[in-house]
Amino acid sequence: MVIIGVDPGYAIVGLGIIEYDKSRFRMLEYNALTTGADEKTTDRLKYIYDGMNYYIKKYRPDAIAIEELFFNSNQKTAIKVAQARGVILLAAVDNGVRVYEYTPLQVKQAVTGYGRADKNQVQTMVKMMLHLDKIPKPDDAADGLALAICHAHSNRMNSLGGQDLSI
Amino acid sequence: MVIIGVDPGYAIVGLGIIEYDKSRFRMLEYNALTTGADEKTTDRLKYIYDGMNYYIKKYRPDAIAIEELFFNSNQKTAIKVAQARGVILLAAVDNGVRVYEYTPLQVKQAVTGYGRADKNQVQTMVKMMLHLDKIPKPDDAADGLALAICHAHSNRMNSLGGQDLSI
Repeated sequence: MVIIGVDPGYAIVGLGIIEYDKSRFRMLEYNALTTGADEKTTDRLKYIYDGMNYYIKKYRPDAIAIEELFFNSNQKTAIKVAQARGVILLAAVDNGVRVYEYTPLQVKQAVTGYGRADKNQVQTMVKMMLHLDKIPKPDDAADGLALAICHAHSNRMNSLGGQDLSI
Repeated sequence: MVIIGVDPGYAIVGLGIIEYDKSRFRMLEYNALTTGADEKTTDRLKYIYDGMNYYIKKYRPDAIAIEELFFNSNQKTAIKVAQARGVILLAAVDNGVRVYEYTPLQVKQAVTGYGRADKNQVQTMVKMMLHLDKIPKPDDAADGLALAICHAHSNRMNSLGGQDLSI
């Protein structure tokens, strides 16, 4: 199965695309959609929607795994990220792809076996599991790959259970 | 000019559509897009996008006026509303319509001349200004009409100045 992992954001959306077959992982692509602070809100949302649409059509994933949003202290940023997440979800449903939501805890648990792993531990495991030469950059793309791995595990173990947003 | 006022929401999106010409208001339609709590997140977002798209294509507005989001105590709800607002903004940009954002204070000021007006005062003024037989229901639709009136005033007075999200 092909999975697109998405680290939702506004200035930067991290994408990690993997294939998972017979307990083997293969990295297909990772990237980030970035928008500039000088661009208008609506243009940034359009760019994020179009970018998601492009990658979904390119890889025809079986599932999209996306991080659950938690609010931080900066509410203005949180609103913008949630707006971007709305158009990401719309791109998924427009292409008939199911979306599964995971918490950071679930991702860390799935990738490292340890829910309190730090960012570096998660990135090192992502690099190892996908047989990469180096840790993927930017961090958001590495997070996208971690989300995709998390979904593959969840699907296999039938235990971590990301919330299916799209049935 | 034709203006669609949007009270953004998740379970209910209020829409008020007016025409404003030579200092005269005319109500064209008000309505609400409602989605059920039993529906999946992605389906609700798709429904809201499609509904916005329908009304934009039907009325070809010169502008969309939308309420600025403020966070309340329920963060889960705030995230969902912001996600819905994301697809509403996308529908606007997909149709080449500019979006202007207003605070509740700006709306109350524009409609009643008094920034601390209560809901009933705003609704009564909306009814009078649009020559309606009764106060529009649901409240969300009345709020949509108030936003549209606010934008018309702002455009005329060139003073209230909603933030243009879309240039």
